[in-house]
Amino acid sequence: MSDGVRVAVVGCGLVGTSVAMAATRVDDQVRGWDPDPEVLRRSAGRSGLSAADSLAEAVGGADVVCVCTPTADIPQLVAEALRAAPDAVVSDTGSVKVQVMDEVEASIDAALTHRFVGGHPMAGSERTGPDAASASLIDAAVWVLTPSVRSEPAEVDRLRAWVGRLGAHPVVMDAETHDRVVATVSHLPQVVSTALMGLATREQEGVPETLMLAAGGFRDLTRLAASNPELWAGILRANRDQLARAIDLFISDLASIRDHLADPDGDALESILGAATMARLALAARPKVRAGVAILQIPVPDRPGALAELTVAMSERGVNIEDLQILHAPEGGRGTVHLTVAGDDVDEAAAAAEQHGFEAFRVA
Amino acid sequence: MSDGVRVAVVGCGLVGTSVAMAATRVDDQVRGWDPDPEVLRRSAGRSGLSAADSLAEAVGGADVVCVCTPTADIPQLVAEALRAAPDAVVSDTGSVKVQVMDEVEASIDAALTHRFVGGHPMAGSERTGPDAASASLIDAAVWVLTPSVRSEPAEVDRLRAWVGRLGAHPVVMDAETHDRVVATVSHLPQVVSTALMGLATREQEGVPETLMLAAGGFRDLTRLAASNPELWAGILRANRDQLARAIDLFISDLASIRDHLADPDGDALESILGAATMARLALAARPKVRAGVAILQIPVPDRPGALAELTVAMSERGVNIEDLQILHAPEGGRGTVHLTVAGDDVDEAAAAAEQHGFEAFRVA
Repeated sequence: MSDGVRVAVVGCGLVGTSVAMAATRVDDQVRGWDPDPEVLRRSAGRSGLSAADSLAEAVGGADVVCVCTPTADIPQLVAEALRAAPDAVVSDTGSVKVQVMDEVEASIDAALTHRFVGGHPMAGSERTGPDAASASLIDAAVWVLTPSVRSEPAEVDRLRAWVGRLGAHPVVMDAETHDRVVATVSHLPQVVSTALMGLATREQEGVPETLMLAAGGFRDLTRLAASNPELWAGILRANRDQLARAIDLFISDLASIRDHLADPDGDALESILGAATMARLALAARPKVRAGVAILQIPVPDRPGALAELTVAMSERGVNIEDLQILHAPEGGRGTVHLTVAGDDVDEAAAAAEQHGFEAFRVA
Repeated sequence: MSDGVRVAVVGCGLVGTSVAMAATRVDDQVRGWDPDPEVLRRSAGRSGLSAADSLAEAVGGADVVCVCTPTADIPQLVAEALRAAPDAVVSDTGSVKVQVMDEVEASIDAALTHRFVGGHPMAGSERTGPDAASASLIDAAVWVLTPSVRSEPAEVDRLRAWVGRLGAHPVVMDAETHDRVVATVSHLPQVVSTALMGLATREQEGVPETLMLAAGGFRDLTRLAASNPELWAGILRANRDQLARAIDLFISDLASIRDHLADPDGDALESILGAATMARLALAARPKVRAGVAILQIPVPDRPGALAELTVAMSERGVNIEDLQILHAPEGGRGTVHLTVAGDDVDEAAAAAEQHGFEAFRVA
């Protein structure tokens, strides 16, 4: 591999263009192709990739081919790329892996598939199109690589090195494990958020005050429900086996909690709540503050500038804000900010807030 | 009722002291009593209430008595207050209502209970003790009033007027409706958040990379799981019948979504996701921006001052920040801020960010 890796991006939407931008940033030579000439033109303008007239032209001579199209198109394009780029490791960026990899392996000569390694950069999927692309999406993102049993270890290493070169964090696991993990931490949360919003909406039909009583916790749990329904229907269906497994496990856990409610003498409910509390606190904002964070609750008027005053107060004293949540009063006019800082910084943060006329209450 | 309402607060922890502060703010005459003399002393110092030596002394001559103790103590103290304050409307602040009201009515002469009206100020329960109290907790908070069939309408009106006088927003409903609504919008979310964190922790035992793949959505859904387990175990148990009902409805909805996953031809999954999307978008940050909000995704370096620069940029252009979420890169060093603003403000907000050297991408 020369200094500049020869990269081909197939499919130049949000993810493909972001990958191209991260690659040109480290002086890779990037060619791109997209079935939509207008998308390709805009992607080239934004990322500096060299637009090719065909997939074969884009991938010819490439070291790395990255197929960044919608899931349904991936198997065929991977197959074409493996044939047209005899020296390349070929990967894709689909958000569900088993289905894609099975289709690729079923349709392609085994002599080629040793150069195919599945991939999934965890780089957000809310936006679409090359104009929304940014190399910053790739920075420090976890980029899962899913080799099959046929993938050559040297090809996995080559892809892993390139992903790291772009600034992402490569994590290798098999496709089934990937799909199981994202079912739990991504697809199940989407389903849960949707179901909770749906149930509250039904209750609202009977009791019009229902959502008036919904506070910050409810808003947190239902924020995901606002995601694009068509996009998510496709993702959830593509991972239906693992997602169905996760839903069933989750239902079983909920039923267990329900049963513990009726048992006033046991402490199983306390144990379940306590274990989740410890686990969530350990999932802190950043690895370096996992040892301990503190939360300050600070009432603020709901007007432009109030949040700026508060964050400037923190900045002046060198306090880094790890997380910040705004809870609005239901009737408007004021709100409360929950500010998460490293445990060591909490006294300084409270003093900074109070110096600027805010009340600050430590809540965790 | 004279200009200054004669108020008695029984139980002077966080809620009782906050109520006292909101009452002294509007020149009510406030007496307080707490079984713990040290708590009473600190509450008096913070709120300006007049400390009484006994419950009877505190409530004698009162117009309004507010019992703000832990749930288990409420029925007996309400009974004592009804006897010792013959002219007062007596209420409480317990977070679950049917159980308390049943106990009050079972233990007290029917000739007294027409002056009892249950209450629940939705004013947050994370903190404890008088030192954390603030009148701001009451400002614009929804304060549910739950009259029983025995409550005199004139007493309900008197309590409602006083709650409004404190700055809260009174909402009247029966106790069972209250308990059903909070089961859906408060207690079920707590259970769901706990169960999701628990399931992910179990998966993590098999696949150590599990939580590394957890992004902002997972963090949103599990934030509640960090709440105080003993406090919540008590609340959930006190509302076990309504909560069990809500869990069962939720399980049924999840099972229905699971079944729709396997049906590739129907569009039931799309319909469910789409309805939840519309409902969640309508639940905007504030009533005045319910017509529409927009979200900007803005990469920021993870250092003190970065968030201050961004919020100052918004403030300079008069853009109010409706919500703000910080997503940290798993490896630290940088993050992304999701900034929610009124739809009308989004172009101004993007321009403000870009003027200060940030990239801003509209995502919703």
